[in-house]
Amino acid sequence: MIPNDRFLRACRRQPVDRTPIWLMRQAGRYMEEYRAIRATHGFLEMCKTPELACEVTLQPVERLGVDAAILFADILLPLEPMGLAIEFAADEGPVIRNAVRNTADVDRLRVIDPEDCWFVLEAIKLTRKELAGRVPLIGFAGAPFTLASYIVEGGATRTYKLCKTLMYNDPGAWHALMDKLADVVTVYLNSQIAAGVQAIQLFDSWVGNLAPQDYREYVLPHSAKVFANLDRSVPHIHFANQAGTMLDLIKEAGGGVIGLDWRIDMDTAIARLGDDVAIQGNLDPMVLFANPDVIREKARGILERVGGRPGHVFNLGHGIQKDTPVEHVKALVEAVHEISAEIIGRG
Amino acid sequence: MIPNDRFLRACRRQPVDRTPIWLMRQAGRYMEEYRAIRATHGFLEMCKTPELACEVTLQPVERLGVDAAILFADILLPLEPMGLAIEFAADEGPVIRNAVRNTADVDRLRVIDPEDCWFVLEAIKLTRKELAGRVPLIGFAGAPFTLASYIVEGGATRTYKLCKTLMYNDPGAWHALMDKLADVVTVYLNSQIAAGVQAIQLFDSWVGNLAPQDYREYVLPHSAKVFANLDRSVPHIHFANQAGTMLDLIKEAGGGVIGLDWRIDMDTAIARLGDDVAIQGNLDPMVLFANPDVIREKARGILERVGGRPGHVFNLGHGIQKDTPVEHVKALVEAVHEISAEIIGRG
Repeated sequence: MIPNDRFLRACRRQPVDRTPIWLMRQAGRYMEEYRAIRATHGFLEMCKTPELACEVTLQPVERLGVDAAILFADILLPLEPMGLAIEFAADEGPVIRNAVRNTADVDRLRVIDPEDCWFVLEAIKLTRKELAGRVPLIGFAGAPFTLASYIVEGGATRTYKLCKTLMYNDPGAWHALMDKLADVVTVYLNSQIAAGVQAIQLFDSWVGNLAPQDYREYVLPHSAKVFANLDRSVPHIHFANQAGTMLDLIKEAGGGVIGLDWRIDMDTAIARLGDDVAIQGNLDPMVLFANPDVIREKARGILERVGGRPGHVFNLGHGIQKDTPVEHVKALVEAVHEISAEIIGRG
Repeated sequence: MIPNDRFLRACRRQPVDRTPIWLMRQAGRYMEEYRAIRATHGFLEMCKTPELACEVTLQPVERLGVDAAILFADILLPLEPMGLAIEFAADEGPVIRNAVRNTADVDRLRVIDPEDCWFVLEAIKLTRKELAGRVPLIGFAGAPFTLASYIVEGGATRTYKLCKTLMYNDPGAWHALMDKLADVVTVYLNSQIAAGVQAIQLFDSWVGNLAPQDYREYVLPHSAKVFANLDRSVPHIHFANQAGTMLDLIKEAGGGVIGLDWRIDMDTAIARLGDDVAIQGNLDPMVLFANPDVIREKARGILERVGGRPGHVFNLGHGIQKDTPVEHVKALVEAVHEISAEIIGRG
């Protein structure tokens, strides 16, 4: 039993006394405790050392009072055991030396085994032990499209040119890649659930760059395959960034909780999604640079739009920016707890 | 009288025999005729020399057979006469040395006079003469928010941190800046109309980064002021990029033609906008890197969704990428003309 189970209850659309909140990228550079560790350890080293991953995972729980922990890791970790030569170059983002451009390249990739990312599983076990039930632990993975975009482009991109060209001109190679990635993501997430995470989030960070009809044709079947094969003992959150114009398709792909960015009003999103899914979001991360009274007013705006309806997990619409003032983040957590208790209390 | 008035007819939701097409950034680096001129002239020099601006404006009309010309210019041209020290650094984008951060900075800016951008007006007159009525000429301006984002950030941005912080923490300074920009944009566009452009487009390229409730509070009144004060003798196109989740607000701000990016399906957009406005769009510019048969299929997809309804101007959902194959662009123009004639013809 977890003393604070508000997050899990909200994911299951059960009533809560106040709205739970966690923040995407809550373990990160905006916290001095994190920077202190990062100063003497590489980013990948932190991901691959269970004690360090555990330590930074716990930092925001202790400092901010959030209602869930999310494992410190990177969405690209499962790519290395697939046979991709990935490097995290300083300030340049990830670089993949053997990018995938055709069917032969796809054929060379292997589906991972559950133990390939053993360090993630060890970090989960250690973190569960250290949390001692205070709040639930969330695991996560990148969605097939988001992983494919890195794998095809050879790194981050602003245009998705190679990725879209492969998709349009060689749909056979594209679907083979996406099918393999769906299997990898499924193995990876199910291994995390087996190791002890109490919810999972699928991050489709870049899919909002696609036209909805392209999402339906080239992506949806593969994301749907992931959700269809996930262990159903924990809630599944589906966050597709910049996808506010195709929430119907995101919901169709799967997930009992749909994550929202900040580019859609909460009440519009609820109207489009219906009431058979929970929602997560959706404050603009840049609001955290405003004065605390503005932060409070913006949090209230979202909570009033939800109106105490069960099934809301408060979050940002994207990850916390690296230079966000930590006191402002704390003010947000307190505001959400206090204002939501008032709204839920007035019934 | 214009021999090819399909573009103007479509803007006014009048029937046409085939769907008109023009392309955002159609005068640009993907054409070798453009690169030949750019090789010996600076970008700003081209904007400020009416003969050169006219020449590159005409290139896509001659090479591609598009149904409208759009004046070669830059949205930041009116900033210099406002008192902003703007430089176009190579590969770095525009840089503004005296960025605006408070009310005193806003007070120092002046509203431009119609003649301040005399070179734009001369280029319009010359281009109208050279076009000799073949196709209509479109003028344009950046919308107040998009201009404000450059002015406050001091250049391009990915986070809009300074811009949003000013908006949230000093709404007085923000609204004063936006009000002044609305006046500048109105003077600038009305001077273009007086000089001879036959339609105008307001580009709100970056406004899709705002939450809808922020758009309503901090932007909509100022864009609405522009549209309310524009000369009504020509059609007004309102293009707000990445704003598919708030098309109702974009329409409310104004414009008889609403431009769409590619992140929303055309039929969804039509359903949300209603039939009292024309629409422009909405092919993903990256489709132009695909094989011509894919380009044709994607063009057909959009045209079938419109279904021959009057009031559609075909366009990309954003500007042409600089390395787009020009033969592919030509294939798109031909496909749109041919397929739309077939769809309109079958009634």
